Amino acid sequence: MARTLPDPFTADSNLECREIGDGNLNLVFHITDQNSDKSIIIKQALPYAKVVGESWPLSLVRARIEREILQEEYRLCPGMVPEVYHYDDDLALTVMEDLSDHVIMRKGLIEGTSYPLFAQHIGEFMARTLFFTSDLGMNQQLKKEKQGRFINPDQCKITEDLIFDEPYRIAEKNNYEASIEDEAEALRTDGELHLEVALLREKFLTHGEALLHGDLHTGSIFVTPESTKVIDPEFAYYGPMGFDIGAVIANLLLNYASLPGSIKDSQALQEREAMLLDMVRDVWTEFESRFRALWVNDLVDPMAKAPGYQDHYVQKVFRDTAGFAGAKMVRRIVGLAHVADIDTIEDATERERAQRTALAIGKALIKSNRRLNTIGELLDTVSTAVSALKS
Amino acid sequence: MARTLPDPFTADSNLECREIGDGNLNLVFHITDQNSDKSIIIKQALPYAKVVGESWPLSLVRARIEREILQEEYRLCPGMVPEVYHYDDDLALTVMEDLSDHVIMRKGLIEGTSYPLFAQHIGEFMARTLFFTSDLGMNQQLKKEKQGRFINPDQCKITEDLIFDEPYRIAEKNNYEASIEDEAEALRTDGELHLEVALLREKFLTHGEALLHGDLHTGSIFVTPESTKVIDPEFAYYGPMGFDIGAVIANLLLNYASLPGSIKDSQALQEREAMLLDMVRDVWTEFESRFRALWVNDLVDPMAKAPGYQDHYVQKVFRDTAGFAGAKMVRRIVGLAHVADIDTIEDATERERAQRTALAIGKALIKSNRRLNTIGELLDTVSTAVSALKS
Repeated sequence: MARTLPDPFTADSNLECREIGDGNLNLVFHITDQNSDKSIIIKQALPYAKVVGESWPLSLVRARIEREILQEEYRLCPGMVPEVYHYDDDLALTVMEDLSDHVIMRKGLIEGTSYPLFAQHIGEFMARTLFFTSDLGMNQQLKKEKQGRFINPDQCKITEDLIFDEPYRIAEKNNYEASIEDEAEALRTDGELHLEVALLREKFLTHGEALLHGDLHTGSIFVTPESTKVIDPEFAYYGPMGFDIGAVIANLLLNYASLPGSIKDSQALQEREAMLLDMVRDVWTEFESRFRALWVNDLVDPMAKAPGYQDHYVQKVFRDTAGFAGAKMVRRIVGLAHVADIDTIEDATERERAQRTALAIGKALIKSNRRLNTIGELLDTVSTAVSALKS
Repeated sequence: MARTLPDPFTADSNLECREIGDGNLNLVFHITDQNSDKSIIIKQALPYAKVVGESWPLSLVRARIEREILQEEYRLCPGMVPEVYHYDDDLALTVMEDLSDHVIMRKGLIEGTSYPLFAQHIGEFMARTLFFTSDLGMNQQLKKEKQGRFINPDQCKITEDLIFDEPYRIAEKNNYEASIEDEAEALRTDGELHLEVALLREKFLTHGEALLHGDLHTGSIFVTPESTKVIDPEFAYYGPMGFDIGAVIANLLLNYASLPGSIKDSQALQEREAMLLDMVRDVWTEFESRFRALWVNDLVDPMAKAPGYQDHYVQKVFRDTAGFAGAKMVRRIVGLAHVADIDTIEDATERERAQRTALAIGKALIKSNRRLNTIGELLDTVSTAVSALKS
C-alpha cells in the first residue's frame, strides 16, 4: 500500500519493507525507496498483546488515539514528534515520518551517550502539551469534548493494573527473579506504601488535568544529541500531569540504578551518575520554568489568577511527579514489563543490586511524595535511599 | 403523542395536557386521563435557555443524558427517581412517572413542612449512586466508558461559569440587589477566597470520581414526609462526590438563612433553625455511614483496602462537600440564579439580612473547607459566621 500513497514515493520507487520491533502491541514496518533517500514508517495496531497472545484482546481505538495525539502534539510542538503523512483508522494504521537517524533513548543511555539538550526539549514538550490541553490553557468546554474523544478505557486499564495494583499483590503477570522474593514480599505487606499507591491510583483514575502522552518512558523517545522526538502516544488520555513527568524521571533513575552494573571505572561511574541526577533535576526545572511562563502569558481561566494558585498547582504537579516516578520504578522491577537498562546487566549480583537500588528509590519516592516541595528534596530522597542500601 | 404510547393510556383515554414550569431549560407537560387516575409527565429539552433566549444555545444531548441517568439511578435506588416509561432522543423527550402527589422540596421547606426521613433517603441515594459509579464500586474500565458517555461539556460550562467564576468578578449575568453591593465588591477582591474557589473549580473541572447528579438542590427533589424522589439530572457528569452532597447542604443552609425573614415567633424560629441544622448534620452522617458500609461490602478495587485509605477518602469527600456547599450558597445570592427561600422574603431589610447571612456562611465554608474534619466542625463554622454577623 505504501506505493499508493501520494507522498513520498512515486510509481518508480524501488521499495524495500522491513518489519522492525516495537514492543508488545503493534506491527511496525520501515519502508525505504532504494532509488532515493526517502523512507516512511507504517505502524499498525494489533488486536491483542504480543507478549500474552490473543487471550489478551485489545481495542484498536488506540491507533486512532495515537494518530490524533501525534497530530495534536505536532501542532503544539512541531519537530518534537513524527509527522503523520497518512492514516487509515479502519485498518488501525498510521503512515509517519521515519526517524531512523535517531535512536531510542533507552538504548542511547545504556550505550553511555549524553543528551545535553534532552531536558530542555522534554521540558518544553511536556510544558506545552500539558498546559495547552488543560483547563488552564484551553476553553473548558472544548477540553471536556477532547477528554471524551480520548477516554481510552482499555489502555488505562492496562496501566491501572500493571502499575497501581499487581506489583503489590500476588499476580500472575508479575515477573521478577527469585533473588528478590524478599523485596516482592515486602511490597505486598507494606501498609504505608499501599496507602500512598492507592492515593496515586486514585489520581491516575480520576484526575483529568491534561491530555497525557501516558507512556512517556525512555523507550518512547527517539533522540540524537541535538534532537528529541516523542513517539507512541497510544496510552494517551486525560490524567494527572505528574504521570508524564514522573515517567521521564523514573526512567532516568532506572538507568541511574543500572550504572554500577555496567561501568567498572569508579571515576567514570561517579561522573555518569552525577550526569543522570543532573538530568533529573533539569527535566523538572526546565518543565517548571516553561509551565510557569505559559501560565503568565497564555492563561485562559481568569480564576487561575487567584493569588497563590500557581504555586499551589505547581506543588501538586511536583508531588504527583515524585509519587508516579516511584510507582513506575517499582513496577519495572517486579511487574510484567521490565527495562533493558537493568535486565541487560549480565552479572547476576550486579543485576540484583540494581533491582534493589531501583526498588529502594521507588519506594522512597512513593512514601515521601506528599511531603516533597523541591527537586532538591527529591534528589536528597534518592541519595538517602541509595545510601541506606549500601550501609 | 401521549395517546400513541403503549402505557399507561388506551384509545379511550380522555387526555388533558397542561404545561407546567420547570425553570430555564425545558418544556414540561402534565398529561392526565380524565377517565382514569392515570397520568404521566412529558419533558422536552429546549435548544436554548429560557431566561436568556435563543442567544444562549444549549446542546440537546442533555435530554439523552438526563434520561439515561434516571434509568441508572432507578437501577441503583428504585423508588427514589421517577420511572422512565418511554423516550425519544431525537425529539430530546422523555415520558416518565408523574410525581404530582409530591411537592418540590424547596417549596415544602418554605411552607414550613418537616421531612423527617429526608436525610436517610438522600443519604442512601447519594451513597449508592456515588459509590457504585466510582472506581470503588465498579470495574475501572467500564467506569471510564461510562465517563465518556456522560462527558456533558455544555452543562458543565454553565456550572463552571455560574458557580466558580462570575460571582467573583463583574459579569453581565450576575444578579443582586444594590443594597449588597458592598458584599459583591468584597467577593471580587478577596484573594484568600479566590484561591479556595480556584481549587474548588479545579476539582469540579478535573476530578472524575463518580457520576454526579450535578444539580442536586432542593428544587431538584420531590418530597412528601414519607418519600423522596430526585429529578432533573440533566447536569450529570463525572465529577467530585462532594459537589452533590454540598448542593444538598447548601440549599438546606440557604433555607436556614431565610428563616428569620419568614418566622416571627422567636421560639418557633429557634426550633426550625435547629431542625434545619440537624438535617444538615444528618444528611452528612447518613451519607457517610452508608458509604462506609458499601466500602466494606461492595468494594471492587483491591488497592482501596490499603490501611487508612477509606478514612482519607471520606475526609476528602467531606472537605469537598463543605467547600462546594459554600460556593453554591454564594452564587445563589450574587449570581444569575437565586433561590425562592430568600427571594420571596417580602421585607427588604429581612431579605438583605438573609442574603448577608447566606454569604457569611458560604464564605466561611469556602475558606475553611481544607481544614474541616467533622460535620460538627462544619456546623460550628456556620454558627460562628452567623454570630459574627449579629455582633
